[in-house]
Amino acid sequence: MTPLPQTPLLDTVKFPADLRMIEDRDLPRLARELRDEMIDAVSKTGGHLGAGLGVVELTIAIHKVFNTPDDRLIFDVGHQCYPHKILTGRRDRIRTLRQENGISGFTRRAESEYDPFGAAHSSTSISAGLGMAVASDLSGSKRNVISVIGDGAMSAGMAYEALNNAGALDARLIVILNDNDMSIAPPTGAMSAYLARLASGRTYMGVREIGKKLTAYLGKGVDRAITRAVEHARGYVTGGTMFEEMGFYHIGPIDGHSFEHLLPVLRNVRDNARGPVLIHVCTQKGKGYPPAEAAADKYHGVNKFDVITGTQAKAKPNAPSYTSVFGEALVQEARLDDKIVGITAAMPNGTGLDKLAELFPSRTFDVGIAEQHAVTFAAGLATEGFKPFCALYSTFLQRGYDQVVHDVAIQGLPVRFPIDRAGFVGADGPTHAGSFDTTFLAALPGMVVMAAADEAELKHMVRTAAAYDEGPISFRYPRGEGVGVEMPERGQILEIGKGRIVKEGSKVALLCFGTRLKDCLLAAEDLDAAGLSTTVADARFAKPLDHAMIRQLCSHHEVLVTIEEGAVGGFGAHVLHFLAAEGRLDHGLKIRSLVLPDVWMDQASPDAMYAKAGLDRAGIVTTVFNALGQKQVGIGAAS
Amino acid sequence: MTPLPQTPLLDTVKFPADLRMIEDRDLPRLARELRDEMIDAVSKTGGHLGAGLGVVELTIAIHKVFNTPDDRLIFDVGHQCYPHKILTGRRDRIRTLRQENGISGFTRRAESEYDPFGAAHSSTSISAGLGMAVASDLSGSKRNVISVIGDGAMSAGMAYEALNNAGALDARLIVILNDNDMSIAPPTGAMSAYLARLASGRTYMGVREIGKKLTAYLGKGVDRAITRAVEHARGYVTGGTMFEEMGFYHIGPIDGHSFEHLLPVLRNVRDNARGPVLIHVCTQKGKGYPPAEAAADKYHGVNKFDVITGTQAKAKPNAPSYTSVFGEALVQEARLDDKIVGITAAMPNGTGLDKLAELFPSRTFDVGIAEQHAVTFAAGLATEGFKPFCALYSTFLQRGYDQVVHDVAIQGLPVRFPIDRAGFVGADGPTHAGSFDTTFLAALPGMVVMAAADEAELKHMVRTAAAYDEGPISFRYPRGEGVGVEMPERGQILEIGKGRIVKEGSKVALLCFGTRLKDCLLAAEDLDAAGLSTTVADARFAKPLDHAMIRQLCSHHEVLVTIEEGAVGGFGAHVLHFLAAEGRLDHGLKIRSLVLPDVWMDQASPDAMYAKAGLDRAGIVTTVFNALGQKQVGIGAAS
Repeated sequence: MTPLPQTPLLDTVKFPADLRMIEDRDLPRLARELRDEMIDAVSKTGGHLGAGLGVVELTIAIHKVFNTPDDRLIFDVGHQCYPHKILTGRRDRIRTLRQENGISGFTRRAESEYDPFGAAHSSTSISAGLGMAVASDLSGSKRNVISVIGDGAMSAGMAYEALNNAGALDARLIVILNDNDMSIAPPTGAMSAYLARLASGRTYMGVREIGKKLTAYLGKGVDRAITRAVEHARGYVTGGTMFEEMGFYHIGPIDGHSFEHLLPVLRNVRDNARGPVLIHVCTQKGKGYPPAEAAADKYHGVNKFDVITGTQAKAKPNAPSYTSVFGEALVQEARLDDKIVGITAAMPNGTGLDKLAELFPSRTFDVGIAEQHAVTFAAGLATEGFKPFCALYSTFLQRGYDQVVHDVAIQGLPVRFPIDRAGFVGADGPTHAGSFDTTFLAALPGMVVMAAADEAELKHMVRTAAAYDEGPISFRYPRGEGVGVEMPERGQILEIGKGRIVKEGSKVALLCFGTRLKDCLLAAEDLDAAGLSTTVADARFAKPLDHAMIRQLCSHHEVLVTIEEGAVGGFGAHVLHFLAAEGRLDHGLKIRSLVLPDVWMDQASPDAMYAKAGLDRAGIVTTVFNALGQKQVGIGAAS
Repeated sequence: MTPLPQTPLLDTVKFPADLRMIEDRDLPRLARELRDEMIDAVSKTGGHLGAGLGVVELTIAIHKVFNTPDDRLIFDVGHQCYPHKILTGRRDRIRTLRQENGISGFTRRAESEYDPFGAAHSSTSISAGLGMAVASDLSGSKRNVISVIGDGAMSAGMAYEALNNAGALDARLIVILNDNDMSIAPPTGAMSAYLARLASGRTYMGVREIGKKLTAYLGKGVDRAITRAVEHARGYVTGGTMFEEMGFYHIGPIDGHSFEHLLPVLRNVRDNARGPVLIHVCTQKGKGYPPAEAAADKYHGVNKFDVITGTQAKAKPNAPSYTSVFGEALVQEARLDDKIVGITAAMPNGTGLDKLAELFPSRTFDVGIAEQHAVTFAAGLATEGFKPFCALYSTFLQRGYDQVVHDVAIQGLPVRFPIDRAGFVGADGPTHAGSFDTTFLAALPGMVVMAAADEAELKHMVRTAAAYDEGPISFRYPRGEGVGVEMPERGQILEIGKGRIVKEGSKVALLCFGTRLKDCLLAAEDLDAAGLSTTVADARFAKPLDHAMIRQLCSHHEVLVTIEEGAVGGFGAHVLHFLAAEGRLDHGLKIRSLVLPDVWMDQASPDAMYAKAGLDRAGIVTTVFNALGQKQVGIGAAS
């Protein structure tokens, strides 16, 4: 283990008030120490490294110039907030980042008054900041509100909606566009290209020089009509930049690693700005740590690593990740069917679609952080006979929910929704948990809703979705690696709405939807050992339900437990509703429906979270015993 | 009744192929006849009038120039599609618009091959069109894809996401921006102001003249550096318009009521465009019908009306509408608490927030068609101690779902969500039905979910929400008028998580969440008359559930039926889940859970829809008899 870095100046800063006592000329030294501290901390915890390194100077400059926490500082996404956390009273806990009972990897209101708005999903900061700025105006306070947003986050419509509203409201909001030409994947979209043109400097500085030159030239008694015409051309029609068209005063681009650039601009804005201002700041992701600067993804998200070499610790996986199984299975199907296309919202690597992109770049679309558009774009492709796989994380599919309802499901279009990160996600915590997809999708008429119990099942579901042309179909699978089952050469086409009995028993039935199947099988061992002969079934489908199988399970067992890694209202609710409608509850059925607990669960290891949720082996066994009204004795294996 | 209009030229047009036989010079006559036909039809059916009148020439010109349906024409929102329907084989059914078994008031794939993409929610057309354009490229076809989108729809982030992606993909997509300076309410937002500047003509034509003038002037041997500087100033930095910055070739503004403007531009684009093109067309909503032109909302949505006078038929309401009860109750609370603020997404009138805006303009925010931003903007206000009421229709809340989860619920912020148009909406059909809100909201930890059984309950819930500061709270209420109950002076603060027994009985319990309470009471009359003593309870809360009341209902009744006007996974699911967890199903309970049927129901009168769904008096009675295994005899009142 490397020794802790030497940070004498940083050691004097517990809160931003301390930082404000430091002279401007010493801030570069503070930045160096802060960077060292952050690199060391993340090397021990893993987490988001590149983003924080890129905003070390910017974070210091903001806290130096503005009166946080009374002035409100909002970090978009929040994965760049580690330096901010170190400077705002959380340095003593920085090596608990993303750990169970530790501090969050994102900003979080509950953690500090210096985090006025929690984040994790992208592009929320301008809306939230505008709310605060309007509140400040309504209250008659003179508070500053500063939203720091990356260029990648500017591809989301939500950011545009907020700019559009802010420009019209004329509230005193400061938006700092942190342009590092990189969100997670390389940037996509026209806005990104536009920012690159602006940031090239030649262009932006060019116009000022042009202005001077023209004024100098035309001032010398030239035709007044031309002067006015030029003024029109520069000011009225074109307005300078898109941000100015949106009603923002636009400053920049400026060098985000130079205090000489940052401090005067921020002070000027603090003292003189009236309406909304956008400061365009250019930074380098991973700045100051050579291994990060050299990496293609700038160490966006890292495991624990060696500070000297930059080598990341990699746990040897027992089985391929679900993401890679999906990516490879999709490529396998796409080779055989040229109507298959893939769509990702800025997550080619995270969803495994990078594999499709390698082989079929023209059939793979990264639309940027733009889930609403991703879904309806897929719907458009489906109308023309293509087979779009719109691959999103469960939590981000929430962004495209209306489009799933209105553009896909109502029209019955065969869009395929592979849903990654369904269920607990561990260190990323509640903002990234995939808890609600089964509930909000299975409510939709005509939607097929599947969940993969293991990586082989996932392969079947990819093929099933490819083959299914009747309407929309989704399949969920978790973060992390598979359970290590044997993999088929190619997936099978599953019969729609048919589950499978995995293990036969006679007294207890465990009906699982998705990934808790492994724990169901372990629980069944314990129950069998306790004399409770247990059937384990894999539902595969929450919609349509396998009515025949459910009837059979009810008729031949004393207890029926449904298990899913999702919120109330999903698979278990559909089973209960079906049984009620059939009158199968009229004469008694010991039924229990295990779902995620009704709380926002903080980050922890997935296993710890399953245990807390009662969705692990022990929790399932306990549920069965309770249902039977029996005391649970001698179940050593379950504890 | 006025006689049908004389339309000799229109009578020759059954399909666009017929229209293409008409000479350009005769198109103005066709436009006049089409307008007459449309006015007459809508005068008999009610519906969207102003939007269609504004695009008569544009619709004709597109079908004249492009080879529909092989070329794809997508209308955004779709409420402007009546002229299109008349020209595409549906004239014989145009007087069944929005009626049961009639044609839809929006575009609809199932209705015609000339409707390649259904719509109703705003701002989807560019995404869908881009999907089709990409599909055309991948298939090697040379098909044109035309998306027609209004300026109001440009405030939605989804439109921006699609532009951003289209500009980068360089696909052959034609976007026609139909700028009538009016969505439903007067436009809001910076984009709208920007379009107005562009459309003022002075500015846009100005730049061309400037260009000519400068070229003429500077060509005469002036300093070459200046020439290049001016080129830079016009082209590189500012690019002309925001659309050009986004990678679109931008043409316009042009006069959307002049075939002499429209036809050459459309032909030019058809024959020469390569990448994405945006044609900025200015039209007048309500054009050609003086009463519509004179109305403030340009006859956006109308009842049946008299063609000569423009007077709309107004059914005399029996009770105030839920919307107006909400609007007035909110004003009443806002007078007493200056922290209450209102937020609407382009629906000040539709949500009743116009009443708040009249009295407290600085506390009322119309953010444009921008539900994502609306929700997070409200969250920002809530962090500062304000009490935001973010009033949306149920169906549009779907657009802000991720923001409800991520920005409001996870942070436990006290944003109030009044949810209008919850349940069936009648003539607007499945795209506007408010079916899913209880399901997707009640799944969220910490969310309070209420439904108003009548207009007095709604008033209580407004006050309850105003008083509740612990976290997010929602209350749903339907389209249309109340049931006519006596109204309290002011609402009461309801106890969170407590329902009420409305009528006591002993054998059957009807547990209603929301507006079906009236039918439950009627059903109870029938059941009582048949000797089945019936309790009727109003749950008020789907979350938190009134556990005590539910236990009591279970213990003292033989049958328990839950009733709600929402999809599976909502109130009934939570009740079933609770009962299963408590073991109350172990020994038998005749429970039934009535929800919306699992189909997309077409437009009809709400009463017809309730009957079809089994959610009316008769349906409830039948459910109870079936649960009891009794034949239903002599229930005259229920039929």
